[in-house]
Amino acid sequence: MDRGAIARWKVDDGKLTTDSGALVNTPYTRASRFELEAFPSGSSPEELLAAAVAGCFAMTFAHQLADHHHLPYELRVEARVMLVRPKPHARWTVPTVRLHCTALVTGVDDDVLAALAHAAKTESPIIRAMGVDVSLTITRDRPEDWHEHPAVQ
Amino acid sequence: MDRGAIARWKVDDGKLTTDSGALVNTPYTRASRFELEAFPSGSSPEELLAAAVAGCFAMTFAHQLADHHHLPYELRVEARVMLVRPKPHARWTVPTVRLHCTALVTGVDDDVLAALAHAAKTESPIIRAMGVDVSLTITRDRPEDWHEHPAVQ
Repeated sequence: MDRGAIARWKVDDGKLTTDSGALVNTPYTRASRFELEAFPSGSSPEELLAAAVAGCFAMTFAHQLADHHHLPYELRVEARVMLVRPKPHARWTVPTVRLHCTALVTGVDDDVLAALAHAAKTESPIIRAMGVDVSLTITRDRPEDWHEHPAVQ
Repeated sequence: MDRGAIARWKVDDGKLTTDSGALVNTPYTRASRFELEAFPSGSSPEELLAAAVAGCFAMTFAHQLADHHHLPYELRVEARVMLVRPKPHARWTVPTVRLHCTALVTGVDDDVLAALAHAAKTESPIIRAMGVDVSLTITRDRPEDWHEHPAVQ
C-alpha cells in the first residue's frame, strides 16, 4: 500500500489534499498552527498527526479485541499532540503524543483489556513509525453511562 | 499549542474528527487502508501522516526561504507513506516516508535551494517526531513550465 498527500504553500498559507479526498485543498496557516489554540481557523500538521495516530490505534485495538473474541461496541480514542518551544528561542518540538481510549466493551476483565490495549499500541504501524513517546491511558464506560457521554451524540 | 483528533471505531469502520473541523466524521475502514490502493473509498492513517509531514515540511521550507530573502512563488510537496509486510505474516510496517518537493522560486542557486531544503527537513517538528527515515528529493520548475504542470489546475 502506498498512500499520500500533497501540500501546496504560497506566501502565507497552505492547502492540503490527500489521495482519498478526505482533505481537498484544506487550508492551514502559521496562525492556525502556532497561535489559534482555542479557535483553530484551519488545520495543522499536528492535528493530522493526531488523527493518524488515533485512527491507527483504534483500528488496531479493535482488531486485537476481536481476535480475542471481545468485539467492542465502540472505541473512542483521542490523541493530543503538543507543539512547544522548550526554551524561548528553541525550535518548535513535538515532545510526545498522548492517547486516551474510552472503551465500551463487555465480557472482558480490566487487566485483559489493559493488556490488549498495550499490545495494540506495540502493534500499531503508525505508533511504531514515531520517534517520540506515545502515552496511553484507558477507561471503560459502562453501557448505561455511554449514551449520556457528552461526546456521543 | 495542543491540537488533537478523535477516532471512533464501531465493528468494521471508523470515523475521524479533528479539532479544527478539517475532518468531521471522516470514514476510514480496513478495506480503505489495506486493500483499495488505486481507488481509496475512505481515508487512512497513512495518508493523514503524509499530510502532516508534507504540510509541516512545506511551511518550514517556505519559512527558511523567506528568512534568506527568497520568497517562493509556490512550493508543492508530496509525501508518500508505504504500509508493507516485510514477510508474509509479519506486522504491517511503515518503513519510510518519502517527500518530493517541487519549488517555484527564482533568484536562488540550486545548491543554496538544496541546502535550505535539507535544513528545513532537519528543522521540521513533525519530521523530527518521526522514528523512520524521511527521504527528500527536490526539483525546481521554471516559471514558464509551471502553469503547464498537470498537478496545478
